[in-house]
Amino acid sequence: MDSSSFLTSLATSFVIFIVLVLLYIWLSKKPGNAVVYYPNRILRGLDPKDNGSKSWIHVALSSTEQDVISISGVDTAVYFVFLSTAVYWVSFVTYFLLWKAYKHVSALRANALTSPNVKPEQYAILVRDIPSVPEGQTRKEQVDSYFQNIYPDTFYRSMLVTDNKVVNKIYQELEGYKKKLTRAEAIYANSKATGKPEGTRPTHKTGCLGLIGKRVDSIEFYNEKINELIPKLESEQKSTLREKHLSAALVFFTSRVAAASAAQSLHAQKVDTWTAIDAPEPRQLLWSNLKIKFFERQVRQYVVYIIVALTIFFYMIPIGIISAFTTLKNLRKLLPFLKVVLDEEAVRTVLEAYLPQLALIVFLALLPKFLLFLSKAEGIPSESHAVRAASGKYFYFSVLNVFIGVTVAGTLFSTFKSIQKEPKSAVDILANSIPENAAFFLTFVALKFFVGYGLELSRIVPLIIFHIKRKYLCKTEEEVKDAWTPGALGYGTRIPGDMLIITIVLCYSVIAPLVIPFGVAYFGLGWLILRNQALNVYVPSYESYGRLWPHIHVRIIAALILYQVTMFGYLGVKKFYYSPILISLPILSLIFAFICNKKFYRAFHDTALEVVAQESKETPNLEQVFRSFIPPSLNYEKSDDDQFEDALSQVSRTGSFV
Amino acid sequence: MDSSSFLTSLATSFVIFIVLVLLYIWLSKKPGNAVVYYPNRILRGLDPKDNGSKSWIHVALSSTEQDVISISGVDTAVYFVFLSTAVYWVSFVTYFLLWKAYKHVSALRANALTSPNVKPEQYAILVRDIPSVPEGQTRKEQVDSYFQNIYPDTFYRSMLVTDNKVVNKIYQELEGYKKKLTRAEAIYANSKATGKPEGTRPTHKTGCLGLIGKRVDSIEFYNEKINELIPKLESEQKSTLREKHLSAALVFFTSRVAAASAAQSLHAQKVDTWTAIDAPEPRQLLWSNLKIKFFERQVRQYVVYIIVALTIFFYMIPIGIISAFTTLKNLRKLLPFLKVVLDEEAVRTVLEAYLPQLALIVFLALLPKFLLFLSKAEGIPSESHAVRAASGKYFYFSVLNVFIGVTVAGTLFSTFKSIQKEPKSAVDILANSIPENAAFFLTFVALKFFVGYGLELSRIVPLIIFHIKRKYLCKTEEEVKDAWTPGALGYGTRIPGDMLIITIVLCYSVIAPLVIPFGVAYFGLGWLILRNQALNVYVPSYESYGRLWPHIHVRIIAALILYQVTMFGYLGVKKFYYSPILISLPILSLIFAFICNKKFYRAFHDTALEVVAQESKETPNLEQVFRSFIPPSLNYEKSDDDQFEDALSQVSRTGSFV
Repeated sequence: MDSSSFLTSLATSFVIFIVLVLLYIWLSKKPGNAVVYYPNRILRGLDPKDNGSKSWIHVALSSTEQDVISISGVDTAVYFVFLSTAVYWVSFVTYFLLWKAYKHVSALRANALTSPNVKPEQYAILVRDIPSVPEGQTRKEQVDSYFQNIYPDTFYRSMLVTDNKVVNKIYQELEGYKKKLTRAEAIYANSKATGKPEGTRPTHKTGCLGLIGKRVDSIEFYNEKINELIPKLESEQKSTLREKHLSAALVFFTSRVAAASAAQSLHAQKVDTWTAIDAPEPRQLLWSNLKIKFFERQVRQYVVYIIVALTIFFYMIPIGIISAFTTLKNLRKLLPFLKVVLDEEAVRTVLEAYLPQLALIVFLALLPKFLLFLSKAEGIPSESHAVRAASGKYFYFSVLNVFIGVTVAGTLFSTFKSIQKEPKSAVDILANSIPENAAFFLTFVALKFFVGYGLELSRIVPLIIFHIKRKYLCKTEEEVKDAWTPGALGYGTRIPGDMLIITIVLCYSVIAPLVIPFGVAYFGLGWLILRNQALNVYVPSYESYGRLWPHIHVRIIAALILYQVTMFGYLGVKKFYYSPILISLPILSLIFAFICNKKFYRAFHDTALEVVAQESKETPNLEQVFRSFIPPSLNYEKSDDDQFEDALSQVSRTGSFV
Repeated sequence: MDSSSFLTSLATSFVIFIVLVLLYIWLSKKPGNAVVYYPNRILRGLDPKDNGSKSWIHVALSSTEQDVISISGVDTAVYFVFLSTAVYWVSFVTYFLLWKAYKHVSALRANALTSPNVKPEQYAILVRDIPSVPEGQTRKEQVDSYFQNIYPDTFYRSMLVTDNKVVNKIYQELEGYKKKLTRAEAIYANSKATGKPEGTRPTHKTGCLGLIGKRVDSIEFYNEKINELIPKLESEQKSTLREKHLSAALVFFTSRVAAASAAQSLHAQKVDTWTAIDAPEPRQLLWSNLKIKFFERQVRQYVVYIIVALTIFFYMIPIGIISAFTTLKNLRKLLPFLKVVLDEEAVRTVLEAYLPQLALIVFLALLPKFLLFLSKAEGIPSESHAVRAASGKYFYFSVLNVFIGVTVAGTLFSTFKSIQKEPKSAVDILANSIPENAAFFLTFVALKFFVGYGLELSRIVPLIIFHIKRKYLCKTEEEVKDAWTPGALGYGTRIPGDMLIITIVLCYSVIAPLVIPFGVAYFGLGWLILRNQALNVYVPSYESYGRLWPHIHVRIIAALILYQVTMFGYLGVKKFYYSPILISLPILSLIFAFICNKKFYRAFHDTALEVVAQESKETPNLEQVFRSFIPPSLNYEKSDDDQFEDALSQVSRTGSFV
C-alpha cells in the first residue's frame, strides 16, 4: 500500500465523517426526527428539546458521571471509564490508570448497590440443582421447608422455575394477534377518515404469507383467534404453574443482607445440589437455562470452549487467504482478466484502500450472534453474563484472527520461501511483519472511527429505516414506537471492537507512532459521541452493576502483554541492546493482574455485605419484588393473580413469619 | 543388593516386629504401664482394664467408626478411611474407592458439624485485615458497630485480638515457678516422711543452671517470685486488653447458621479489608499470625513456596550422593581402608541391608519441623491448617527427593558414561531405573512397617522414657502425668510417610509385584495398630472436621498420575505395543480430580448451611462460647473476669440485642 492510497483512504473517511456530522446537526434539529435522536429522553418522559439551546458537544462534555449513571446505568459509566483509560499505552501509565479505574468502578458499583431504591434482584437468590422431590412432598414444600429451616427469620417466600416453553409460545401468538388486530382496526379507522364514511373492512388470506387460502375479514378473524387463545393460555398457565416445575427456584428474603449473604454461602453438603447465586434482574433471566444441571453446565462450558477454539483456529485459514488475495498486486497476478479494470487509477486507489478492510469488517460482523448463541448454550442464567462471555470470546477471536492472523498471514504469503529455508520463531515472524502491516491497521482504525462514529452519531441507517417504516408500514402508535425504539448500547460487540483498537494502538505505538493520534482520536471521539448517544439515544436493557469491568480489565492486560511480547521480539529482531530488559515487563503485568484480581475481583463477583447493610427506611414492598420476577407470559391477566398466588404458595405465607 | 541381603533384611525386620509385639502383650498387662498403653482411656476417665478380657486385636477390629470418632475425632476416622483405601492400586479401583471415600468423609464431616453439642468455633468467625481505626472511635467500637450494622439480629459480641507476646512470657514464667514450687513442696514433704520428722527444706543456687550464685531456700524463693509476678501479670493483662489491639478480631454470633454464613460472605467492598473466615478451634488458634495483613500473607506464601522449591531442588544433591555412596561396592571402592571390615560376611549383609535406608529415614526425620515452621510463617491462622500445609510440602518433598531422587541418582551414578553418550529423556531414565531399585524400596517398605509399627505398638521408647522420668525426675503427680501424656497422632509426618509408601507400591506394582503383599501388609497392619493406638493411646490436639481429606485425595491422585506416567515410560522402554493407550489414563485422572474437586471440595472449605441449620434445643451458653476463646494468659485469675469483660466490651452488651 503506497502513501497515495493511504492518504486517499484517510481523506475519504474524513469527508464521510464531516458529511455525517453535518447531517446529524441538521437532521437532529427537525422535530420529526426527535424520536431517532432523543429516544432515551422521550422514553423517560423528558422534553427532547430541553437541551436544544446548547450544542450536543457541550451537553456531552458537561454531563456528570452521575447523570450518565442515572440515565444509562453503571454499565454505561463503566464503559466510559474504559474509553477514557484506553488512550494510554506506556505500561506503567496503563497500570496506574487501570488501578485507578478499577478502584473507581468498584466505588461506582458499591454506590449503586447501596442505593436505597428497592431493586428486586437484591432481595432474591437463584437456586439451581434442587435434588429430586422426596416422596410425600411437593416441589414447593421441599423448597420452602428447606429455606425456612435455614433462614427462619429472613426467608420470605419462593418462586419455582417452570418450563414456560408452551405458555410462552401461546402468549407470543396471542400478543401477535393483538398487534395485528390493533393494526387492522387502525387501517379500518383510517379508511373511514380518508375514503367512504362507512370505511373498508380490511381482509387477508389465511394461507402461507397471506398469498393463498380463504379471504377473511381481518378484524373478525383476529378477534376470534384472540378469544380462542385466551382460555388456552389460561389453562396452560395453570398447568405450567401446577405441574411443570423444574429443579430451580427463586428464593426471596426480607432483607438485602440476608439475600447477599445467602447467595455467597454453600447450602448443601453435596456441593452440586442447592447451588445458590445472586438473582439476576428479572428482565435478563434466561429461564430456559435454569434447569441445566451442575455438571451438565461444566461439560457444556468446556464443549463450547473447544468449539470456540476450533472456530478461532479454522477461521484463520480463510482470513489469511482473504488478506493475501486482497493485496492488489496479488489480485492482478492471480486474476489477470481484471487487469484492465485494476489499472484504472481511481478504481485501483479505492480498491487498494478499502477492499481488505471491508472484507474484514463484513466478516467480523457475522460472528457475534454465533458467539452469543454459544455462550447461552453454556447454561449461563442471565443475559448480561452471556453477553460478557460472548464478548470475551469475540475479543480473543478478533485479536487472534484479525491482528495476528492478518499480520502473519500477509507476511507469510510474501516470504514463504525464505521461511522454508530458515525457520524462524513465531515471535520473530510477528515482530518482523509489523512494520509492513502498519499501514493496513492505520487505515483500519481510521475507517472504524471516521465512518463508524460518523454513522453512530448521525444514526443515518436507523433514521432511514424509521422513516420508511413510518411511511409505509406503521399503522398504529405502538408500531411507530417499535420503529424508533433504539435498544441498548450493545456492549457485546462494541467492547471487543474497541479492545482490538487498543491492541493495535498498543502494538504499533513504538514502530509506527502515527497510530497514536489515530488511537487518541478514536477514543476521544468515541467518548464524546457515545456519551451523547448514552444520554439521548440508547436505553439500557439490563444492569449488571459494573460486572463488565473486571472482564475489560483482564483483556486490556492481555493486550498489554501481547504488546510487551511483540516489542520484545521486535527489538530483538532489530538487535536492540537492551531488549532483554523487556522480559520482566510481561511478568510484571502478570503480577499486576494477580494483585488487581485479589484486591478487587471478589467485590464484583459477590455483593459486599457492608454496602447493602443500609436498609432503606421504608419497608420494601416484598409482594411487588416477588411479582416483578413473574414472566409476562405467566402474569397475563391481572385477575389471574390469585391463581398464581395459590399455585406458587401452597405453603401458607403466614408460616414464613413464625 | 543380592537376594541373601534382601532376605536377611526381611527376616531381621520380622524378628524385631515379633519381639516388639510380644513385648507389647507382656508389658501392657502390667498395671504400672497402663498410663503408657491406655493414656487416652485414662484421660477420659475410663478404666484401662475395661477391655482386658479381650485381645487388643479384637477390640481394634470390633470398634465402630463412631467409637473412633467419639474418642479421637473425625480426623482420626479420616485417617483410617485413608489407610483402608490405599491398599489398592489399579486406577479404576482407585477412582471408585476414592470417590466412595470422599463421599463417606463428606458425610462424616456433615455429621460432626450437625452434632447438637455446642462447639465454640461454630459460633464464631475470625476477621482479619480490619482497617485502621477512624478518629473518635476505639477499635472495639469500630468492630462492634461494623458488625452490628450488618447483623443487627444475630451479632453477639466481639473479641479483639491482642498482642500477647509480653503477657504470654510473664504467664509462662509464673507457671514455671508454680510448678517448681509444687515440686519443692513435694520434696520437702517427702523428706519429712523418709528422713527427720521436721524435714529438710530444699535449697538451690540462683545462678546459671543452679550451679553458681547464692544458695536460697527454694520454697521461699519461688513464693517470692510468684508474689512478684502476679501483680506484674495483672497489670500486663490490663494494658494488653486496653492498648495492644491488633487488626483482627473474633466475632461471635447467636446462631451457627449466622456464623457459617458470615464466614463465607464478602463483607467489604475493598476485598483486602475485613476478611472473614470461620474461626478455628480456640486451642489451635495461632494468635501471633492473626495480625499479618492480606497482601503480606500472599507474599509470604509465595516466598515460602520458593524456599520449599529450592529445598526440594538442592537436597537432591546430598541425597543422590548418599544413595550412590552407600552401595557397598561403591563404599569399598571409595574407602578402601574399610575393606577388612566390609569383607566380614555378617557386617557386610547387615550394612548392605540397612545402611541406605537408615540414612534416608534419619534424613527425612529432620525435615518436618522445618516445614511446619515455614508453613506457620505463611501467616496461616490455625495449627491444623499449618500442619496440613506442612504435610503437603513434606509429601512433595519425599516423593520428589526420595522416590525420584534415589531412583534416578542411583541409576545415574552407574550409567553416567552411557548417558553422556546418548542423552535420554527423563521419563526413559525413570522407567529404566525402576527394576534395579525395586529391592531397595521393598526393603524400605518392610523396614518401615515391621520396625516402625513394632515400635508404634510396643511404645518401647515412650515406655522407657516414662519409667526413667518417674523414677528419677518426677516428684509431683502433675509431673508424672506430663511424663505419660501421649500427644496427638502426628498427621503432619505420618500421612506423607504413608503417601510415599502408596507411591512406591503403585509405581512398582506392575514391575515388581512382590511389593503388593508388602503394601497390603503395611496398610493392613497399620490400620489395625493405629486403630488400637487411636482408641487407647493418642489424644487428638485439634479437630478440623475432616479437612484433611481433600488434601490426601489430591496427593493420592498425584501419586496415581506419577504411576501412570512411569508405567507409560516403562512400557514404552520395553517396546510394549499398546503403551500409547496408557496416555489417556493421566488425562482421565486429571478429569477425575477435577470432578471430585467440583463435587466435594467446597463442602470441606466452607460449612454447608443445611448441616448447621439444626440448632440445638437448649440455647447455647454464649458467654461460655466467648470465654473459651480467651487465651489462658489473659484469663489467669477468676476474679479478673469483670476486668476482662470491661476491657473487651466497651460497647454495652445490651446494645447488641436492640
